[in-house]
Amino acid sequence: MAERSAPAELPVVVLSHRGPVSFTRQSGRRTVQRGGGGLVTALVGLAGRLTDAVWVCAASTSEDVKVMRENDDTAVGVVMQPQPHLATESDDDEQALQVRMVELDTQAHDDFYGVISNPLLWFLQHGMYGLSAAPNIDSATRSAFFDGYLAVNEVFAAAVVEEVRARGGKALVMLHDYHFYPVAGVVRRECPDVVLSHFVHIPWPGPDGWRVLPPDLREPLLRGLLGNDVVAFHTEAFARNFLLCAQELLQLPVDYERMTVQVGERTVAARYYPISVDVDALADMAASEDVERNVRRMEENLLAEGRKLIVRVDRTDPSKNIVRGFLAFETLLEQHPELVGDVTFLAFLQPSRQDVQEYADYLARIGATVARINARFAHEGHEPVDLRLQEDLSTAMAAYAVCDVLMVNSLADGMNLVAKEAVTVSRRDGVLALSESTGAFEELGHFAVTLYPFDIQQQADALWRALTMGPAERRDRRSAAAAVVAENHIGKWLATQLADLTELTGLPIPSVEE
Amino acid sequence: MAERSAPAELPVVVLSHRGPVSFTRQSGRRTVQRGGGGLVTALVGLAGRLTDAVWVCAASTSEDVKVMRENDDTAVGVVMQPQPHLATESDDDEQALQVRMVELDTQAHDDFYGVISNPLLWFLQHGMYGLSAAPNIDSATRSAFFDGYLAVNEVFAAAVVEEVRARGGKALVMLHDYHFYPVAGVVRRECPDVVLSHFVHIPWPGPDGWRVLPPDLREPLLRGLLGNDVVAFHTEAFARNFLLCAQELLQLPVDYERMTVQVGERTVAARYYPISVDVDALADMAASEDVERNVRRMEENLLAEGRKLIVRVDRTDPSKNIVRGFLAFETLLEQHPELVGDVTFLAFLQPSRQDVQEYADYLARIGATVARINARFAHEGHEPVDLRLQEDLSTAMAAYAVCDVLMVNSLADGMNLVAKEAVTVSRRDGVLALSESTGAFEELGHFAVTLYPFDIQQQADALWRALTMGPAERRDRRSAAAAVVAENHIGKWLATQLADLTELTGLPIPSVEE
Repeated sequence: MAERSAPAELPVVVLSHRGPVSFTRQSGRRTVQRGGGGLVTALVGLAGRLTDAVWVCAASTSEDVKVMRENDDTAVGVVMQPQPHLATESDDDEQALQVRMVELDTQAHDDFYGVISNPLLWFLQHGMYGLSAAPNIDSATRSAFFDGYLAVNEVFAAAVVEEVRARGGKALVMLHDYHFYPVAGVVRRECPDVVLSHFVHIPWPGPDGWRVLPPDLREPLLRGLLGNDVVAFHTEAFARNFLLCAQELLQLPVDYERMTVQVGERTVAARYYPISVDVDALADMAASEDVERNVRRMEENLLAEGRKLIVRVDRTDPSKNIVRGFLAFETLLEQHPELVGDVTFLAFLQPSRQDVQEYADYLARIGATVARINARFAHEGHEPVDLRLQEDLSTAMAAYAVCDVLMVNSLADGMNLVAKEAVTVSRRDGVLALSESTGAFEELGHFAVTLYPFDIQQQADALWRALTMGPAERRDRRSAAAAVVAENHIGKWLATQLADLTELTGLPIPSVEE
Repeated sequence: MAERSAPAELPVVVLSHRGPVSFTRQSGRRTVQRGGGGLVTALVGLAGRLTDAVWVCAASTSEDVKVMRENDDTAVGVVMQPQPHLATESDDDEQALQVRMVELDTQAHDDFYGVISNPLLWFLQHGMYGLSAAPNIDSATRSAFFDGYLAVNEVFAAAVVEEVRARGGKALVMLHDYHFYPVAGVVRRECPDVVLSHFVHIPWPGPDGWRVLPPDLREPLLRGLLGNDVVAFHTEAFARNFLLCAQELLQLPVDYERMTVQVGERTVAARYYPISVDVDALADMAASEDVERNVRRMEENLLAEGRKLIVRVDRTDPSKNIVRGFLAFETLLEQHPELVGDVTFLAFLQPSRQDVQEYADYLARIGATVARINARFAHEGHEPVDLRLQEDLSTAMAAYAVCDVLMVNSLADGMNLVAKEAVTVSRRDGVLALSESTGAFEELGHFAVTLYPFDIQQQADALWRALTMGPAERRDRRSAAAAVVAENHIGKWLATQLADLTELTGLPIPSVEE
């Protein structure tokens, strides 16, 4: 482990909607859960190394609210290891991560989260609207934007400003994702000496995509982001699209060589850092008894009699392109009848946002498509699609481990960590079949069978190629892909950002080892 | 009129799907109709000035086919003035425009036109697909592309090559629109000494838009276009998107300052020239007795008792955003009940491509929306929406002349000439309410009330502002807009392109007076 940062380093304020922990009450006792995802892993790692770091996030449970009220809405110390708990006197102070959970008005938060962030910004940024019919921006949408999204952002920005001021007005502020585009603008105005970076984890479309919003809705988002020193994305194309938006929608001068935009006296850089998985943690989990048990079960059932296995793991989000994936599989069975009965498509699909009509409709289309294919190609008790509408990490891990083909055919995907997880965990040199429209394609496309996500026939052909690939080629591709993931691990993602910020600002930004 | 070009000037070969004339048989006699649109006007004007020019187009009627067969598939001379007719010995040879109509296999042409050009390329380039459900590119689409679109393009390219070779291999070749993206590649290969330009009349989306097609479909289009010296669009944003596609989809080096892309030894320029209307011809037509009669009728009916009139003139294409226009009008009546009975929305909507499901569905949605609004806001015998599902140029002209507001709220529109026609023809200083997502907005946006096409409330507010604008402001805006249209007339559109080609190549490109 690296040594603790010298005190001269800037304190760090992190903002993300979901925090590193969440509190609940179970059987009358307060309990603490660790938040999921690579972001938490990476930033907990960073925060644990710093003398002074605070993580601002939403209070997401009533117990979170209670904890904050008991603490007069100031940050609480949380110790993450071995099990997360509120810091007590017996804990080493320096072990504690400061967490500030922001309590929000329910109606405003619903508008912020359930109307604007999801689905509006999510759909817009993934290009998922059928524009001739949706969205219709009406007075209700506008209220949700101004009284929900912007108002909630003011509350979060105020919390960030307070934390920065408590640290003498100098800090590195790291903002995350599409919930918080306006925050940097406020923080920059109130605390001109901060270093600000915002990481956007989902795709950033070009100006035409953003014209779905009228200027009084899109400009506060863009101008907010331009309060940062660095606006970061997963891919170069997203970063370039951001510059195009600054140029076309705000008439600002941009430099496509340096990847910067000029905002008055300030220069804002657009950068890209592909996020990754925590390879060590993943390896540990894949070796767990739970996963082993599931692997054995799959070997005995799904893989019995030399059957082949195609796997996908996704939320039931239209951007994941699940229906076309099944249509491609159907075309494969139609054109290669010898495969019927000998290949199973195991799909772990976690139902998502079912209160949103488009998501409910999409799940229905998935069900209808699977039923048709299974009826059509059922063979001696074998159904070709094994659809599991639930989240079960341990079974998914087992499926990564043993599958012949892992399918990721997203229409648009900021990164897609499933692809990185699967090549890391695979034990049978599963072939990655990967959409060109994922962020992960920049790193892994060379070792994958490419999927062109609108082309059913091409995807059927690609699945055929993947299923029939020889063992040597499977091994070479899989090990090369796994090596790339191991090289560009989650620690490097963060270390590179911090190193760039240091170079860009000349300030004592904390550093981490890769 | 300018003098005839000196013989040293390069001959010109024009290619567009619709030609300057079409032949039919009526009562046993061969008759000739002039093609419509500003393109025909501009290029007939050019061709008429040249010693040697030929226009290649599709044979679109059985009589076209007969004419070509009688002439052994070589170009025929057509005299355009005063009425178009086949040139005879009594015509001055130099008056004749050479027209070569290409006969095509019916199935291949249906695939070329009815499957790929419309709707696939049209929808893709206007961003009209709801991508979670369409398009599904399957083996039928792929056949239509390779055996239809590409095959038909080979036929047209061969005709162009023949015409170029007949002229010693040196010519200026001017290609038009989304039907013919692959042509320049073939012509460049076969006739390396030509000067090639391709004008794209519809929007050009960024790389994400084009990723709807897999590489073996999109690359022949892009590479074909890169056979040109100049690829031209209506707006700077479209030209920039083209460069982005060359960079991201073909990994070619581009220069955003010079707006060029490097293709091996060759430099291809992306340029923009906003097309316009023939202001003089328009003025003549607007002054015709037919239009006068329609004006009087409207004054007596629609404008009686001081009623206000909103007008729109469009094909029933989803990209025209007709339904949201009516929803905005409904919101206007809802929020300003004093307007009920006092304002009429006259909509001339020409049914379009009803054999395509999306278009049939869209027309149905238009009908349903209008019925609802008229039922809801009928007032003492007055229905607020006057829907006319037909094309009637003379009535449309009259409506341009007398309306209070002309609405153009397209979601995506290469140029939109309705806006330019209306400000030219208006006699009552009609206010132009214009979508920011039209090509015309670059020139006319400053004088229009801007419409943000997804925002129903904003469009309702903009209609209110337009309806209540004072006469002085109406006059100032209208006359300024008309002056811009008069300045950037159709002759200038062509003259600027030719002047740029001369500068770019240093070759004796014909010139025209603006």
